[in-house]
Amino acid sequence: MPLSPLAPAAFPDLPVIDGVTFAAAQAGVKYKNRTDVMLAVLAPGSTVSGVFTRSATRSAPVLDCQAKLGASDGAAAILVNSGNSNAFTGKAGLESVAAITAAVAVATGIDAARVFTASTGVIGEPLPHERILAKIDELTAAQTDTGMANAAHAIMTTDTFPKGSAQTVSINGKDVKIAGIAKGSGMIAPDMATMLVYIFTDAQIAYQPLQDMLGRLTDKTFNNITVDSDTSTSDSLMLSATGTSGVDVTGSAGFEDALHTVMLDLAHQVVRDGEGATKFVTIAVTGAASDADARLVAMATANSPLVKTAIAGEDPNWGRIIMAVGKSGAAADRDKLTIKLGDMVLAENGWRAPSYSEEDAAAHMKGQNIDINIDLGLGDGKSTVWTCDLTHAYITINADYRS
Amino acid sequence: MPLSPLAPAAFPDLPVIDGVTFAAAQAGVKYKNRTDVMLAVLAPGSTVSGVFTRSATRSAPVLDCQAKLGASDGAAAILVNSGNSNAFTGKAGLESVAAITAAVAVATGIDAARVFTASTGVIGEPLPHERILAKIDELTAAQTDTGMANAAHAIMTTDTFPKGSAQTVSINGKDVKIAGIAKGSGMIAPDMATMLVYIFTDAQIAYQPLQDMLGRLTDKTFNNITVDSDTSTSDSLMLSATGTSGVDVTGSAGFEDALHTVMLDLAHQVVRDGEGATKFVTIAVTGAASDADARLVAMATANSPLVKTAIAGEDPNWGRIIMAVGKSGAAADRDKLTIKLGDMVLAENGWRAPSYSEEDAAAHMKGQNIDINIDLGLGDGKSTVWTCDLTHAYITINADYRS
Repeated sequence: MPLSPLAPAAFPDLPVIDGVTFAAAQAGVKYKNRTDVMLAVLAPGSTVSGVFTRSATRSAPVLDCQAKLGASDGAAAILVNSGNSNAFTGKAGLESVAAITAAVAVATGIDAARVFTASTGVIGEPLPHERILAKIDELTAAQTDTGMANAAHAIMTTDTFPKGSAQTVSINGKDVKIAGIAKGSGMIAPDMATMLVYIFTDAQIAYQPLQDMLGRLTDKTFNNITVDSDTSTSDSLMLSATGTSGVDVTGSAGFEDALHTVMLDLAHQVVRDGEGATKFVTIAVTGAASDADARLVAMATANSPLVKTAIAGEDPNWGRIIMAVGKSGAAADRDKLTIKLGDMVLAENGWRAPSYSEEDAAAHMKGQNIDINIDLGLGDGKSTVWTCDLTHAYITINADYRS
Repeated sequence: MPLSPLAPAAFPDLPVIDGVTFAAAQAGVKYKNRTDVMLAVLAPGSTVSGVFTRSATRSAPVLDCQAKLGASDGAAAILVNSGNSNAFTGKAGLESVAAITAAVAVATGIDAARVFTASTGVIGEPLPHERILAKIDELTAAQTDTGMANAAHAIMTTDTFPKGSAQTVSINGKDVKIAGIAKGSGMIAPDMATMLVYIFTDAQIAYQPLQDMLGRLTDKTFNNITVDSDTSTSDSLMLSATGTSGVDVTGSAGFEDALHTVMLDLAHQVVRDGEGATKFVTIAVTGAASDADARLVAMATANSPLVKTAIAGEDPNWGRIIMAVGKSGAAADRDKLTIKLGDMVLAENGWRAPSYSEEDAAAHMKGQNIDINIDLGLGDGKSTVWTCDLTHAYITINADYRS
């Protein structure tokens, strides 16, 4: 797959997070000649929080992680494989998870109740977990605190670039570091969390406030992106705090802001690697009767195949945005709607704007960043959603490729 | 646009419905060298019922029709243009409707409160209604009871074939005829009615029982089809009964069955002309906790870009069906699900079926009719939805064409 035209210039320099180490290996679960499994090990005293897909057909590793969250603050481990999602694999799927977590526990000395896993790839095929078991000693021996970039590579599937982001924030005069990695390109319409995302910090914070913060920020970041309206069975986002900075960040707005920045950056990178994407689209809805209504309108627009193909064709066909507002189910009044492309008013007062220029609108559409602003003129509700266009390459990838 | 590979072999012979006449003309609203406006005239004593889009941004003609329904059983007229939808056209849009209905009233002698209109095509452009006004005398003079096929041509937009269907049913030893026409190809995800559909019968029936029957049958036909999950601003379905057969069909199950057959046939023809379609897909969901849940699952599957591209690629990637069930929001239990392709069991008991054969599944996918059967194993709820695949041609049509 060629590199997405929306890819960042380079993978960022990720800082070392004291208390976390990583290693990646080639287990050959499905892919050849590339890494496809990564193991992260967290020092004793680490807090692990997570959010997961709400899919009714979620994968065996997701069910296992959900059962283990919040258990203790002992040492922990996270093992992730790509190439097979271990979803809809029945009792055998749970047995694979049990075999992997038991083997990691033996190799690392960490309680199996603190070993989390994730699998991403094809749905419904048995996971050949013995290939992963064969690599666990190698993964344990190769642990290094500079291995996060390698881990980002190992978890890719249809991704065309690895995704990483980091922030350092000063709290009470001391630095706290946050760094994270993500994978995701198709089957992206997070309902609770999304795809596979692993974020680490040396901040000190207990499980419940960390979990609460993660939930709040997920609703402003990963839950507001969509590539193709299809929600994965494997979506997992885990945030681990090692506490090694010695800085208690409970209730810290500065820490929450920095974490928000990392999460939003990773979420945007997933959209930028949307299957077949050529445009990065921001849909900001304001003036709705409620935030929920604003999100309905933003998501209806972001998921509309007709809006997404118009963007792919660089056609300022704003009638399709009107259609999406109309079908969203949100309260809307034709005569109070305002639609803008960037700062340019396209439609207002139930009618095409008198100042509308097809030429100017077409010029905006030729750019790589498309900004659609919809004001419903009804209340204070607002929501911003990020998406990409729908192109021939999406069809090519998904009519042939078994992801 | 090449003819859809799913098109019927020929346009059906439509019977004359006593009490209705038709004419079509070339008004040049947008298209050149083809008819783009049709006028149907209904004799005094006709009952007119209709269902319309629930879009919050519905078109001016839809608003006008909704206000006029149920008013009387006098003579009536229906004028439809293609090439411009007169949607999101503000006060000017309502003025266009008023000008057209007034001109039809003058030319035909029919009360303007019984003149219904519809417009289909691009959203947000002013309707050049003077081009239509210039043709109203011609349309009135050319009325003929054999003109329904010409009317079917005049209302097409991205359609690759005209759509018609008819049934004759014997009630108390006398024949009652039903004939209808439809247009629709993209922006197809009806919420209440769909697209433009006009059905005529010589049955005798009052407004309220006719309207009730139409609502019931719409929920089993047009409301259960989807091409691209995008709901039009112009969807209109009108059913007119002239009463000229002298047969009262109030409460007649035989009449309702025949009408159901016509409506389902027209709905299927719309799917068969779905933009870029190469496969006709039937998704039957049974065993759901409720009919509403069954419809959620069927629609989530039918609208999933990943399911639709797998079908386009003839890939029996049933994991994507599992994904769609999971994201639908309906109650589902992984271990009680059964997924079949035709009669072939793909998955059951939370696992790929022991009898699963990739080769047999691939053979089914190569056919033109794809039958996906999903049993949730929870209750008696059921729903069937019809859709098509998502192909390169859909992208080509919608990234370039301004519909």
